[in-house]
Parts: sequence; structure tokens; C-alpha cells
Amino acid sequence: MLEQLDEAECLRLIAKGGIGRIAYSGRFGPTVLPVNYRMHEGTIVFRTAEDSAMGEDLRTGIAAAEYTVAFEVDEIDAATREGWSVLVRGSAHHVDADPERASVLQAGVEAWPGGEKELFVRIIPSRITGRRVRQDENVGS
Amino acid sequence: MLEQLDEAECLRLIAKGGIGRIAYSGRFGPTVLPVNYRMHEGTIVFRTAEDSAMGEDLRTGIAAAEYTVAFEVDEIDAATREGWSVLVRGSAHHVDADPERASVLQAGVEAWPGGEKELFVRIIPSRITGRRVRQDENVGS
Repeated sequence: MLEQLDEAECLRLIAKGGIGRIAYSGRFGPTVLPVNYRMHEGTIVFRTAEDSAMGEDLRTGIAAAEYTVAFEVDEIDAATREGWSVLVRGSAHHVDADPERASVLQAGVEAWPGGEKELFVRIIPSRITGRRVRQDENVGS
Repeated sequence: MLEQLDEAECLRLIAKGGIGRIAYSGRFGPTVLPVNYRMHEGTIVFRTAEDSAMGEDLRTGIAAAEYTVAFEVDEIDAATREGWSVLVRGSAHHVDADPERASVLQAGVEAWPGGEKELFVRIIPSRITGRRVRQDENVGS
């Protein structure tokens, strides 16, 4: 059974932070990679190494234009295939100003993995959707 | 510590199937959603409901042109932030022919969630990269 989740429920599910996956259009086309994120003032924030492929792609994208990305968080039991997933679409931005960076650091955002020079990225959600799947007796056999 | 994985190691890690995330460019821009996949003859195969947003986006994309997508599989310990992720880029294709569908079904590919009319999708890898992260005493504090 597939249940659509409303925005409030989606925000509740992703509020605790952890591992999410960012998807964006990069130099090799669509790309999706895991990051360690936190929610901060209604936005998704994470850090990544500035000289990584992701860091370079995101810097280039953000510098060029309004840069739309997607961000996904889920908890799915691989055995029962029950769980939920939340998809956030929005624009990616640098977190540049020192006070803002300090506030992001206070939110406990750690890079995965830790690197030397880090890029602070924030995603401002424009569209949040989610779904929950429960298996019942008629499905999944 | 970030370690790049070679293609053979990546293929070994994703061989058992399970939950992966497909990223593609859809009607609302970059999109990433979880699917239940299996490896089959060197390709990634999964099923999705034909009338879902993903089903409609993938059908449209595949019908229009060579449709490049990304597929990500990971195992990351949220507490220690250690783990691995594999990123596959490739082109998405329908699995149309009955013998081919039968062979995909034999591979044990089940949709997440189960639906009525299903789309069988195959991703033919063109580029496979992966990374493993281990925390050490100098990182992550």
C-alpha cells in the first residue's frame, strides 16, 4: 500500500538529519551521492570537500544560475520493503557569510567524509513530497 | 579517510541487489527515488508502477532519446559515518520483450511498492565509481 505523505509529515520525518542523497545535474549528467545533512531554519545544510567531484559540480552549478537540485531521505527495511521516503526539490546555495557558517556549524553539520577545504551548501526547499509503503496481504507475494 | 573503489569492487558491492536510488531529470527537474533493484547480466533492473510519477517520467525520457540516469547504492552507518557508496551512470531502457521480462522476473526483481501495471526498466552502466569512508583518529572530531 502506497500512502502519500503531506509536507508536515515529510518535514517531521527528515527533521533529525543524518544520511540523505543529493541528486544534481553535473559534468557527467545526473549524479546522486550520499551526504550527512542537518535541517537548519527550514533548509537542508551539509558540507562537502571543496575539491571533490561533488564540490566542484555544486560550485559550478551554483555560480552559474539558480541551481535546482533534489534531495532524498528514506528509511526502508530491505527485507520487508516497508518504509518511507521523502523527496525535497529546491535551489542550492552557498553558505558564505561567517555568522551564517557559525550558525550552520552550531547545527552540528559534519561533512562525510571530513576534508580540508569545505564547501557549505544549503538547499532551500520549494517542493516537498513523500510516500510511505506498507506491505499487506494482497501485495508483494 | 576516503578511498576510491575500482569497478570490480563496486560491482561486487552492488551485486546482491536490494534498495538503490535512481536519479534522473524529470518534469520537475532533478529527481531521486528509492527502488528495489537486482543485477541481471551486468545491468541494473527494477520495476515501477507505470502510472506513478517516476513511471511517467522514465517512459517519457526513454521514449524521447538516449536517456542518461544515475543509480546509487550505499551502506553507511549513520552513527560512525563509515561505509561505502557506489554510483552507476548509464542509459535507461525498457525491458519489453516477453522472454527478456521473464528472465528479469527470474532474477527476482520486485517492485517497491507493488502496483498493477508495471514498467520494467534496465540501466546499462557506462561509468561505475565508488568510495569507501573510514573514520580515523584525525578526522571527524
